Amino acid sequence: MKEKATSFDIAHRAGVSQSTVSRALNNSPLVSKETRDRIVEIARELNYQVDKNASNLRKQKSNTLALLLFEDPTTDDSLINPFFLSMLGSITRASASQGYDLLVSFQNMQSDWHAEYEDSNKADGIILLGYGDYSAYRSKLDQLEEQGTHFVRWGAQDKAHPGVNIGCDNYQGGFDVTNHLIGLGYTSFAFIGDNSEDAPEFRARYQGFADALDKQGLSGESQRQINAHSTEPSGYAAMKAMLNDATLPRAVVCASDLIAVGVYDALREANLRVPEDVAVVGYDNIPISGYTTPALTTVRQNTTKAGELLVDTLIKAINKEVVEDYLMPAELIVRRSCGAQ
Amino acid sequence: MKEKATSFDIAHRAGVSQSTVSRALNNSPLVSKETRDRIVEIARELNYQVDKNASNLRKQKSNTLALLLFEDPTTDDSLINPFFLSMLGSITRASASQGYDLLVSFQNMQSDWHAEYEDSNKADGIILLGYGDYSAYRSKLDQLEEQGTHFVRWGAQDKAHPGVNIGCDNYQGGFDVTNHLIGLGYTSFAFIGDNSEDAPEFRARYQGFADALDKQGLSGESQRQINAHSTEPSGYAAMKAMLNDATLPRAVVCASDLIAVGVYDALREANLRVPEDVAVVGYDNIPISGYTTPALTTVRQNTTKAGELLVDTLIKAINKEVVEDYLMPAELIVRRSCGAQ
Repeated sequence: MKEKATSFDIAHRAGVSQSTVSRALNNSPLVSKETRDRIVEIARELNYQVDKNASNLRKQKSNTLALLLFEDPTTDDSLINPFFLSMLGSITRASASQGYDLLVSFQNMQSDWHAEYEDSNKADGIILLGYGDYSAYRSKLDQLEEQGTHFVRWGAQDKAHPGVNIGCDNYQGGFDVTNHLIGLGYTSFAFIGDNSEDAPEFRARYQGFADALDKQGLSGESQRQINAHSTEPSGYAAMKAMLNDATLPRAVVCASDLIAVGVYDALREANLRVPEDVAVVGYDNIPISGYTTPALTTVRQNTTKAGELLVDTLIKAINKEVVEDYLMPAELIVRRSCGAQ
Repeated sequence: MKEKATSFDIAHRAGVSQSTVSRALNNSPLVSKETRDRIVEIARELNYQVDKNASNLRKQKSNTLALLLFEDPTTDDSLINPFFLSMLGSITRASASQGYDLLVSFQNMQSDWHAEYEDSNKADGIILLGYGDYSAYRSKLDQLEEQGTHFVRWGAQDKAHPGVNIGCDNYQGGFDVTNHLIGLGYTSFAFIGDNSEDAPEFRARYQGFADALDKQGLSGESQRQINAHSTEPSGYAAMKAMLNDATLPRAVVCASDLIAVGVYDALREANLRVPEDVAVVGYDNIPISGYTTPALTTVRQNTTKAGELLVDTLIKAINKEVVEDYLMPAELIVRRSCGAQ
């Protein structure tokens, strides 16, 4: 059997370097139209296999997905929130498994990313990964839609915004973990985490929390909410503030595991034990949550599955298949901090 | 003062869409040479600011760095090793801080990544992040060098290989953590981790371990080494095997934190306490190492600094500045598992 023609064969025949062949088949502007046409013709004659390059040429595809992270890369500790880091890892892997490279870019709302990614042809589609509040850049999403750019968002489901959304059921997660605490017999509760329109994911968790208490007639005096964003210091500060209040809640529902770790620190300082004095639960199931003392009861958002869903949905959209929103179920992970074990 | 000319002004003057202007200034093959020349001319007349696009046009730069991860993306648990995940996060952030996007691609030794990244013009330079064993693709590194591709490697320093190397001093880390255990009075030791040429980083840690013992006349019978790769199950299996041996080492030096976590599990099963029965130390300082029970004494490779060094060095190389190898010091992190506290 004859061996397959390679780009070196084409180069030899065309009297150019292999680099030029590869550039030409990649549609590089560095190669003149005449040379490109000649190379494409020779490739055809040699029955050069339609490989990734040739396929790119035909479909004008980059075989790259863009991941836009809406987080400030220059903040204090130069650490990425562990939940986002886990998503970054799973999206990277899921892209690779499907034969796509991943172009990762930090963005802010001000920049013209919507235009840039349309024009640059650097990626076949976009994954938006932010804090779930897309209202502020609604107009840019509209523009993406108008441009015909394929994109998929991670976050809270919101029919008012264009684009396909993959998310995890934050309301159900907040409801289930609170219901679990109610089942253990606790009667006074607090929720630590933002409850504003700017943080729709935290807000949905809070709504689940509040509704679970309502259902059991435990709202009102037995329920408090204090703002915190998703960091240990913020959780620590919120718990410290609560410790100065008149009465201590018997169970604290945190909007994230990082908040819960800060809450642990504040309780330890006050010589209060988890769960004997105060039960604590978190949200996210970040890696350390299984190793804290006590191990943290939390709600898992399956980041592996989330990454696969985002990538698969986007690739389907790129291939003109019909795609729709998907809401992953939240999964209660019972460990020691709730007092169940 | 007159307002700056925008791409919309150019589009209006040229009688084309703004997308076409942007494509033209991005050197897109979708725009004919005639149109591009006309647009570039109008941009010049309007004194259109040399922004990112124009600058790309002039320098043929993509403002993108490529990160090639040499790990199989399709393995079992679809998790990235936490050390690599941390590096991925810090390289992403460091790139963003410098105004670069990051193109992440899983690679294997067989594929023609060296040629593809040269030809595709997708990135201005390459960061190679693997398990430190570059011998197997030595010829591809040579080719990168010949092509004039800018690249920087993470891993064990090795003057025999082309390219600039950023790494952390594995020998010193292995030496220091072992010396610390000797200082605590232990006299029998084991090392768990590969000690082959295929794993030069683990091997350097082992050499540091062995030399520290030699210096104190503790080599020979007091020293064992058993292979394991960097996973919990592998560490668990290695410790199980050691438990079946005649004598138990008093202190176990693990080549990674993941191995140490597996060792903890095997010791717990055997009703042996850390550090009272067996002292255990790890390597990497992954996030969970501060939360295990007991907290793990380990050696920190500063991933934040590593990411910054890789990105800064690569950008310097792209800008034709002189760059050289850099070996970061390893940093001993003393916690409870060694018995010091």
